[in-house]
Amino acid sequence: MSVSFRIILEDPESRARLGVLKTPHGEVQTPVFMPVGTQASVKTMTPHEVREVGGTMVLSNTYHLYLRPGQEIVAGAGGLHGFMNWPGPILTDSGGFQIFSLGPLRRITDEGVTFRSHIDGSEHFFSPEKSMEVQMVLGADVAMAFDECAPYPCSYEDARKAVERTTRWAERCLKRHDRKDQALFGIIQGGTYRDLRLQSAAAITAMDFPGYGIGGLSVGEPKPLMYEVLDYLVPVLPRDKPRYLMGVGSPDCLLEGVFRGVDMFDCVLPTRIARNGTIFTKDGRLTVRNAEFARDFRPLDPECDCYTCRNFTRAYVRHLLKANEVLGIRLTTWHNLYFVLKLMRDIRQAIRGKYFSAFKRDFLRRFNAG
Amino acid sequence: MSVSFRIILEDPESRARLGVLKTPHGEVQTPVFMPVGTQASVKTMTPHEVREVGGTMVLSNTYHLYLRPGQEIVAGAGGLHGFMNWPGPILTDSGGFQIFSLGPLRRITDEGVTFRSHIDGSEHFFSPEKSMEVQMVLGADVAMAFDECAPYPCSYEDARKAVERTTRWAERCLKRHDRKDQALFGIIQGGTYRDLRLQSAAAITAMDFPGYGIGGLSVGEPKPLMYEVLDYLVPVLPRDKPRYLMGVGSPDCLLEGVFRGVDMFDCVLPTRIARNGTIFTKDGRLTVRNAEFARDFRPLDPECDCYTCRNFTRAYVRHLLKANEVLGIRLTTWHNLYFVLKLMRDIRQAIRGKYFSAFKRDFLRRFNAG
Repeated sequence: MSVSFRIILEDPESRARLGVLKTPHGEVQTPVFMPVGTQASVKTMTPHEVREVGGTMVLSNTYHLYLRPGQEIVAGAGGLHGFMNWPGPILTDSGGFQIFSLGPLRRITDEGVTFRSHIDGSEHFFSPEKSMEVQMVLGADVAMAFDECAPYPCSYEDARKAVERTTRWAERCLKRHDRKDQALFGIIQGGTYRDLRLQSAAAITAMDFPGYGIGGLSVGEPKPLMYEVLDYLVPVLPRDKPRYLMGVGSPDCLLEGVFRGVDMFDCVLPTRIARNGTIFTKDGRLTVRNAEFARDFRPLDPECDCYTCRNFTRAYVRHLLKANEVLGIRLTTWHNLYFVLKLMRDIRQAIRGKYFSAFKRDFLRRFNAG
Repeated sequence: MSVSFRIILEDPESRARLGVLKTPHGEVQTPVFMPVGTQASVKTMTPHEVREVGGTMVLSNTYHLYLRPGQEIVAGAGGLHGFMNWPGPILTDSGGFQIFSLGPLRRITDEGVTFRSHIDGSEHFFSPEKSMEVQMVLGADVAMAFDECAPYPCSYEDARKAVERTTRWAERCLKRHDRKDQALFGIIQGGTYRDLRLQSAAAITAMDFPGYGIGGLSVGEPKPLMYEVLDYLVPVLPRDKPRYLMGVGSPDCLLEGVFRGVDMFDCVLPTRIARNGTIFTKDGRLTVRNAEFARDFRPLDPECDCYTCRNFTRAYVRHLLKANEVLGIRLTTWHNLYFVLKLMRDIRQAIRGKYFSAFKRDFLRRFNAG
């Protein structure tokens, strides 16, 4: 098999577990946060820097790469690993989420989705088969099934239809996918409706995918509602398969997700807020772009030992951000990715040391008070 | 003295010379090209990367730093070296060139220049004294006299007036400047008029500055005209003082400048064209942004061993540039600075090895044919 998952240790006090995801491009310690390289680049960073901040597996977006540069050009470089010079594991999403959230015009039928490019307005068609074909050409270690992600809020009827379509599409994905060195993960939908989530989980897990994405969360619903879904959904997922909570990456959600048994995460949040001049600290978010930091010659985060915090002051980084210097967003991005990836290392260490619940409580008490 | 200059070797076949510029922040091998950090950042690069590509001394712009973040904030970080975390030598220009070229409204009198900020339109006044005060606070190793840079083309009468004003202003700069750990270089003007250049050189060198800037070139005149000015100007400059050709940085001009006895250069050209998707190669410029490179999986410059060329293809860098990914302009900037700084190392090696004329001829034959 292309990708295998092994559980190393299960936390006695929570659903958290320590695992290893084995891929053709190396092993990944879980729980893992995957930095997002939407257009085959983790924004502002070289692949060597992604490694340096602690990244082990990255995500890239099928929708974006299909539109630009096109999967055939990526294939010409020997696939995504060669194209972006990232030798480690990669996961590609199915394109579905971007088609549903970025496309200005679209028509959805059971056959697939017609959408317009956000770049030039040209019309395109994606189906489960097309998503598989593009993802197989891109050649990531993990591909995702093409699903219909319902928005939040969403009526029960619409959520139910999305679950049923996602199930039919998952079958077609399985049928079309035949790349042996690439794992295909199924995706569970159902919005925030308990019976739909359980129905989706039953249908998708019956197909025996090597891993499961939890889709349709972190799309606008309150965080407690997301945690509630995880509380009843995760226990019905197969114990021995990786669980991937899609699009989640704030420090508090990472801790709550791991606590509830999630193994994999991805999110643009750490890199996106960095570009807006906001950084994570143990005391919560700090907007270094604010005027109050103009004469603050302390490190961005005095408790952090990342490259940015070892070398530059808040006053300097604020100046760079105000002056639209690229180095400014490079330095905040560096810090935020380091912060989140360091948090994941600390989480794994805490599970290993059997103090994860206490670690989570202490971290969140301070983070949420900040 | 704050800054000293020593000639190591003079080329028997040209005016080229090998030297060492000693500053409070370290020694610089000359001829040297100084990367430009306009706003206290060499665009897209960390100071560690500037060092890695071969940068030894950088330039920063007084006009920009005065307007943003303001010299007092830079002073709060212990000066420019601390503010931008560049431990090596720094040169600041006087602000004059930017005031004359960027300011939308201005009034020039013998007292000084009233100008409007290009950022917020606010009105400001710069005089020779003010430029010295700001530069002393910024604390670079080398400061430049506040001069009037005449445009090209320029009438004889206007060029003459600019020379005379530059002379009067140089005297006022010398009188006001009193920072012992900072050298103040004079600037020679005179446009492309031989007698005015010689008159300016006589007046400015009579004031015995520790170094001389050659201003008002590379402002639109044909390159042969610039070389002609150097041919008659450099011989009248003191042999034992560094000569700094301001705003020049294309590979051909660097070679021609060194050939004519120039020791120091700076220019935004390598970094600016990089951001437009154009790189230097030994066969001239290559616009990697062009469609012809969409499926070109060779390194940017197959003969180059910089980080970019060792790790990424033209197809990937073109994709990044087209997709507006910051990494794209980082990689082209990296290559172009490396290329120019490597050229300077090769030039110094050629002078040392007494084959500079042949090196220059061979380089230019290929570069200009490209």
